[in-house]
Amino acid sequence: MTNLMDMGMRARAAGRQLALTPTGRKNAALEAIAAMLLDATSCAEVLDANAADVAAGRDAGLSPALIDRMTLTPQRLAAIAADTRMVARLPDPVGERFDAAVLENGLRVHKRRVPFGVVGVIYEARPNVTIDVATLCLKSGNAAILRGGKEITRSCAALTRLIQGAMAQAGLPADAVQVIDDPDRALVEQLLRLDRYVDLIIPRGGAGLHQFCREKATIPVITGGIGVCHVYVDQTADLTMVVPIVHNAKVQRPAVCNALDTLLVHRAVAAETLPAVARDLLASGVELRVDEETLAILRAAGIASDAIVPATPDDFGVEFMALILSVRVVAGLDEALEHIARYGDHSDAIITRDAATAEAFVQAVDSSAVFVNASTRFNDGAQLGLGAEIAVSTQKLHVRGPMALRELTTYKWVVEGDGHVRP
Amino acid sequence: MTNLMDMGMRARAAGRQLALTPTGRKNAALEAIAAMLLDATSCAEVLDANAADVAAGRDAGLSPALIDRMTLTPQRLAAIAADTRMVARLPDPVGERFDAAVLENGLRVHKRRVPFGVVGVIYEARPNVTIDVATLCLKSGNAAILRGGKEITRSCAALTRLIQGAMAQAGLPADAVQVIDDPDRALVEQLLRLDRYVDLIIPRGGAGLHQFCREKATIPVITGGIGVCHVYVDQTADLTMVVPIVHNAKVQRPAVCNALDTLLVHRAVAAETLPAVARDLLASGVELRVDEETLAILRAAGIASDAIVPATPDDFGVEFMALILSVRVVAGLDEALEHIARYGDHSDAIITRDAATAEAFVQAVDSSAVFVNASTRFNDGAQLGLGAEIAVSTQKLHVRGPMALRELTTYKWVVEGDGHVRP
Repeated sequence: MTNLMDMGMRARAAGRQLALTPTGRKNAALEAIAAMLLDATSCAEVLDANAADVAAGRDAGLSPALIDRMTLTPQRLAAIAADTRMVARLPDPVGERFDAAVLENGLRVHKRRVPFGVVGVIYEARPNVTIDVATLCLKSGNAAILRGGKEITRSCAALTRLIQGAMAQAGLPADAVQVIDDPDRALVEQLLRLDRYVDLIIPRGGAGLHQFCREKATIPVITGGIGVCHVYVDQTADLTMVVPIVHNAKVQRPAVCNALDTLLVHRAVAAETLPAVARDLLASGVELRVDEETLAILRAAGIASDAIVPATPDDFGVEFMALILSVRVVAGLDEALEHIARYGDHSDAIITRDAATAEAFVQAVDSSAVFVNASTRFNDGAQLGLGAEIAVSTQKLHVRGPMALRELTTYKWVVEGDGHVRP
Repeated sequence: MTNLMDMGMRARAAGRQLALTPTGRKNAALEAIAAMLLDATSCAEVLDANAADVAAGRDAGLSPALIDRMTLTPQRLAAIAADTRMVARLPDPVGERFDAAVLENGLRVHKRRVPFGVVGVIYEARPNVTIDVATLCLKSGNAAILRGGKEITRSCAALTRLIQGAMAQAGLPADAVQVIDDPDRALVEQLLRLDRYVDLIIPRGGAGLHQFCREKATIPVITGGIGVCHVYVDQTADLTMVVPIVHNAKVQRPAVCNALDTLLVHRAVAAETLPAVARDLLASGVELRVDEETLAILRAAGIASDAIVPATPDDFGVEFMALILSVRVVAGLDEALEHIARYGDHSDAIITRDAATAEAFVQAVDSSAVFVNASTRFNDGAQLGLGAEIAVSTQKLHVRGPMALRELTTYKWVVEGDGHVRP
């Protein structure tokens, strides 16, 4: 029987040990994980367990897309091994000193970056997340308690055993990575209330999971990975940028959180811009849900398609996660800002040649990332130069946008005196 | 009737305006608040409301200490005005740019410090907190929704009207500071679930309030202001530091969160140290709850007092908030670290002359602030050079230790390109 109190206590102790472990030893454990993922013998158990999950998933009638996401192969494990080695090469944030100062009374103070301690991660039916999360937690000195989707319980357990073997081989505490391998959903609620031992909860999944965590947790939760993204084409835009940026933001990977949902176009350039955008997106199979003004412009340009439909109010402020784009003509910057203030918080872009307009947009838009003349798809840890990411936060506490190694740490104050007492 | 959705919506709109307000205008509003607090006419309503709260409190049989904390006088208002002017003089964190970089692909990225938006603050029967909190939120560009203890509802409402008058005078939106002036406790629960409009909850009060917020909130909560603090006297200590540091940490202000709770002394210096410590503290009226070894040492030194009592296990890991100290002799650094790992998370100090021992202590102790040869009383925003503080956090997300102006902000990513799309 899964005893979460016991798991938490062991994770806390392992985390304390991991916090004091030098970078080289952590990297050795990461290398050991990668080597095992590339070794047919040590992967056999993982592949067997995964085959059992996949077979059970097929019997349960899971969709082919879900079955594909669940499936591990030697090739996929090799790709995960490469990611693990990449994490080993990233700089270790732990121990960094910052905000150092000598106060007037002679006290020497600084802040020192330290791991959180124990991180709980709840995710869906993607076994690769087990390794992603474990390696990022390990590198940042955090113990992890993992809980994957019930469809992949066997895969998660086998992958965790592989990780634990590699940890032990590198002389690190195996309890630093533990998995809840019982599909009982009540255990998720217990994990969310394990505030005595767990410092932080990171949900990775859809809106329902995030809402559930927010409702039930007594532990701080990083919510994110969800958001309505906008591109606003200003009257001052370099129109040659519009089609490439909109295409990239909408078409490249429509099912991710930084994909474009709504295009806003300044009235002054709408007739000139929208036909080219529509032709490009229609050719890529995008459904356009357009306001009346856009509809008239497209009709006047002789563009007709079943994939052009009149937008309803429900088509704005919605994350499509699919090849669908809502389009609206606006009177200018202010109307665009009002629209984005109402619906945006993730990734929003302006296309403009005017520096003052760009700055006004950047200042006013309150989203995790604001883009000028660039695709919203860059809101990603690797793309922004952080290496891997464990989540993309749309909440405001601690981290906004990509959550990478540094954001998996906290700090403590260090104050050194010579017998100082407070006056 | 109090409509929290409506308050939240108005706070959100006011917060958006405040986020774009230049520093000078915010400082002018702070000066206007200070001027009103110093003006007998504009304070009359506040003093009348407070007198009504105090009279009702006396009728309800509140303790003299609580009545004193509730009471406002022209002198106290003048002190609050001075604090308000101090906040006006602090640097404005909003707009600061950091982590700037030009990526390989030419994208120019930086992070920009921005207000959270709307902060909810729940506090107890201290009307001065109304001004403290409102001024710190105002300076950091955040709208605030305040909820003071039910004993001071009239005082909070009157102080909020004074603030709103000053805001309007400075051309700022009065909705940026609102108070819930209905004592119905259900409204606190509603505030804790107003995640659509409120970005952050800061409770200021005892353990019960913090626990309540953690349980009920769907909004991130900063918990803190509570903690068991330790001083460990190592065998390498400069013993002349021990009495002054322990005295300061325990006696100066025993009812605050950074006051000392437990003294740990290395066995090798226990006989030499503990009698002097005990004599000093007993002379200041401190009750000593001591382990057997300490008891024997004090007896051997001829120190007898009714205020020396044998410690029970419950005397360790407890925040006394009073002139009580638990004392334990330990075998060395490891035993001290184990004790602190079990009970500490707020402020812990070592007294030592050995740099390696100090560093080992600093590394291993996982508390918001770790002190070497200094009193735990320095874990305070003003003492650590941050100016005023709105809370002292013992959680790990976003802020640890003093939460001052900078910690009342978040950031957004700003990414500038020339038509960049993700490859």
